[in-house]
Amino acid sequence: MKLGGELVGDPDIEIRRLATLESAVPGDLSFLSDKRYRAKLRTTRASAVILARAERDATDLPRILCEDPYAYYARAARLLNPEARPAPGVHPRAVVENGAQVPASATVGPGCYIGRGAQLAERVVVGANCSIGEDERIGEGSRLYPSVTVYPGFIIGKRAVIHAGVVIGADGFGMAAEAGRWIKIPQTGGVNIGDDVEIGANTTIDRGALDDTVIEDGVKLDNQIQIGHNVRVGAHTAMAGCVAVAGSTRIGSHCAIGGAARIIGHLTIADHVTIFAAAVVTKSIARAGTYAGTLPSAPSREWAKTVAHLRSLDRVVERIRDLETRLPKPGKKKR
Amino acid sequence: MKLGGELVGDPDIEIRRLATLESAVPGDLSFLSDKRYRAKLRTTRASAVILARAERDATDLPRILCEDPYAYYARAARLLNPEARPAPGVHPRAVVENGAQVPASATVGPGCYIGRGAQLAERVVVGANCSIGEDERIGEGSRLYPSVTVYPGFIIGKRAVIHAGVVIGADGFGMAAEAGRWIKIPQTGGVNIGDDVEIGANTTIDRGALDDTVIEDGVKLDNQIQIGHNVRVGAHTAMAGCVAVAGSTRIGSHCAIGGAARIIGHLTIADHVTIFAAAVVTKSIARAGTYAGTLPSAPSREWAKTVAHLRSLDRVVERIRDLETRLPKPGKKKR
Amino acid sequence: MKLGGELVGDPDIEIRRLATLESAVPGDLSFLSDKRYRAKLRTTRASAVILARAERDATDLPRILCEDPYAYYARAARLLNPEARPAPGVHPRAVVENGAQVPASATVGPGCYIGRGAQLAERVVVGANCSIGEDERIGEGSRLYPSVTVYPGFIIGKRAVIHAGVVIGADGFGMAAEAGRWIKIPQTGGVNIGDDVEIGANTTIDRGALDDTVIEDGVKLDNQIQIGHNVRVGAHTAMAGCVAVAGSTRIGSHCAIGGAARIIGHLTIADHVTIFAAAVVTKSIARAGTYAGTLPSAPSREWAKTVAHLRSLDRVVERIRDLETRLPKPGKKKR
Repeated sequence: MKLGGELVGDPDIEIRRLATLESAVPGDLSFLSDKRYRAKLRTTRASAVILARAERDATDLPRILCEDPYAYYARAARLLNPEARPAPGVHPRAVVENGAQVPASATVGPGCYIGRGAQLAERVVVGANCSIGEDERIGEGSRLYPSVTVYPGFIIGKRAVIHAGVVIGADGFGMAAEAGRWIKIPQTGGVNIGDDVEIGANTTIDRGALDDTVIEDGVKLDNQIQIGHNVRVGAHTAMAGCVAVAGSTRIGSHCAIGGAARIIGHLTIADHVTIFAAAVVTKSIARAGTYAGTLPSAPSREWAKTVAHLRSLDRVVERIRDLETRLPKPGKKKR
Repeated sequence: MKLGGELVGDPDIEIRRLATLESAVPGDLSFLSDKRYRAKLRTTRASAVILARAERDATDLPRILCEDPYAYYARAARLLNPEARPAPGVHPRAVVENGAQVPASATVGPGCYIGRGAQLAERVVVGANCSIGEDERIGEGSRLYPSVTVYPGFIIGKRAVIHAGVVIGADGFGMAAEAGRWIKIPQTGGVNIGDDVEIGANTTIDRGALDDTVIEDGVKLDNQIQIGHNVRVGAHTAMAGCVAVAGSTRIGSHCAIGGAARIIGHLTIADHVTIFAAAVVTKSIARAGTYAGTLPSAPSREWAKTVAHLRSLDRVVERIRDLETRLPKPGKKKR
Repeated sequence: MKLGGELVGDPDIEIRRLATLESAVPGDLSFLSDKRYRAKLRTTRASAVILARAERDATDLPRILCEDPYAYYARAARLLNPEARPAPGVHPRAVVENGAQVPASATVGPGCYIGRGAQLAERVVVGANCSIGEDERIGEGSRLYPSVTVYPGFIIGKRAVIHAGVVIGADGFGMAAEAGRWIKIPQTGGVNIGDDVEIGANTTIDRGALDDTVIEDGVKLDNQIQIGHNVRVGAHTAMAGCVAVAGSTRIGSHCAIGGAARIIGHLTIADHVTIFAAAVVTKSIARAGTYAGTLPSAPSREWAKTVAHLRSLDRVVERIRDLETRLPKPGKKKR
């Protein structure tokens, strides 16, 4: 009960692990975070459950009552699953250039390359086959999984979790057109990543063109996200998988961006904005709220009709106008 | 004629390779899989062609008649292009931890890391610079191309083909919000990949939160697909490139998911469902069939009009209602 | 003034670097590429600015007048930021197979694998942990950043810039259905990449099925783009991040494809076509011009209404037809 909450039932019950209501076996602690699944309380084999206070009588099982069962579950899961970190040390098959700082508490895996002047802080873990550019600074306790590439000269804060295949600091897409060809604009800006940031597998974050690309504290990015150059993502904003943010867009703090949402460049999104999955954001958003933009799919025959109608909307509006002309409004011609 | 079919014409013709009707030269075998390209039979330089039985008289070339020319071509291509596999053995620049099992028939490329307790079965090939986590099990004959990362403790079946840059088993995106911050939920579920699965370049498959993420037998995933935690993909389902499937969604067997389709979380998709390219699936699909959801692009001026109309649909409906009020239905007021 | 243009003001001013109007400090050269930002000229601390000729009087600062300030800025940036290339040589921790050609002017980073018969031309740079397949040919001056995978047997032209995590030449997604299973079709075509091509981080380009996938000279691809098998991308076409092009589509020269646009397979797109961000192209485009297809997102309540209306368009059209029946056109029944 280190985590607070009110225990109802046998206080001596022993919990070994967490499990969903369906897959729990005796010895497991489960949780109900959504009333819709309340029926599962009847059939679960869990030894105890985490419930909202209002659900006190929803089961006879030993139960922990709290304000927010999902957050409680998160904390319990962290307690029951302390992170396993590899032993410190530089693997003999790693390459650490002269002038790189790797404290004794850090771990550098086989096949890693740590460039000259790079500074790993205490307890940093760099997984196998990562490439860390020159003069890179990585904050205390951060962890990189295998095959992460960080280009030279950037800053990653403390306690970062960076999953496999992530690329940080590749050139932004800056091209000027001249006489039918593209002139590449050297990308000389940086990448600045705050503390407590998580970055999912194969996500890419480009360096700025002149100024920096900035990921503020507590940002959580899922897999395969693309962050263009000079983007700023505000503190504690979370983005689900496959989001794309084009260059120079500024996203506020505490936003939640749904999976596969796309945000075009040079926009400003306010704090506390929620964007639904797969929406395309084409204009700045000045106020907090929820925004959507996805057409749900349908059986293909039905969809074909919708598309046909949509394409003929011009004609539909014309027909209405025509009807209106022939049927004049009685009396008040206000509009 | 090992592959069946009926040969019409010279049985002694010698075939060296397969080619498209356009690019074939003498010595090549070609195929017609779509009637629309029938005219190309007249100009092809191929020495022989694979045709549907109904096309028997479409050419004078030596020809193989069969039920399904495309499947026949697939089989012929496999026969003429047996897979070249690298010689077995562990490269001296690979790191194989104590307690990892690597049979003599397996190949481990340079720069690979094979964690403690990992088990490679017979004839497994691991390309250069792959990272295979502890206690991972990889089934007989599976092949990993370079720079694949597999997190510790999962199961990959037999005869898998896993292309470069794939990441299997990174943490799912599980975060609980508390007081404006995100608490990371330890992801402790597994990844379970069946037999005969192919996974395209840079695709990512997350581990489950508590239960497993499951890819059943015969699933084929193209490049840059994102599979969220606890997703289940049913046997023999194929997904084209850039599909995203959010967490906890269950996709049936024998489905075909078009490129860049997006499927939101916690849905159930039936067996034998076809989803067209770029559709967004926002609700469960209970029955087999084809589903669509994409608006085809148009010249930008035309498109701008469509968008404007779409946004004023509310007003359009109002105008119709208004007209209806002013023009009451004669007689039967059924509605 | 090596770059041309007309200097107005102090010719002895010394420029150290380029900066945006906002972040410039004394010693910096800035530029105005969009009139909308003209107000920033008043507050910038830049020592000089690049302007269009028409903006001659927009500031009193020393200024360079030219036709195209953005292109001028690009050239100035290249002049002030000459590319830093690593020292030539093969790192002792690289593996270069017998029969691979690596000239003395080339750089091969630690952890690289260069397959038998591969040919690197003069001044090629291969970053850490790359895997270059057998018989691969890479043209003069090309640069690969870390963890790039190139499958065996392909051709990359001169002066390519290939960012981290790129995968070139993985199998195209070719499967024939037979009795409810997928038969993999061996992918035996090549990849042919012209000169002066840039490829962004984690982009994937598949090899052809029978013929080649072709990227012509001067093509610029941003991050996380997927190019399917047998696609041809015409010279000097640029694609922003997350574009997906399905198999066998041919894209013309000098096209500009907006971020996250999706182009389905087997299409032909003309030269000089611009496609807006996030559009889905479902039909061939025969003439130059701009094409769009994105629905801008909206506050979610408003959006829900739009979707509802869209779904009931069938009924809307019916109601109009009904009104038209009841209100016959006076006189001329042309339609």
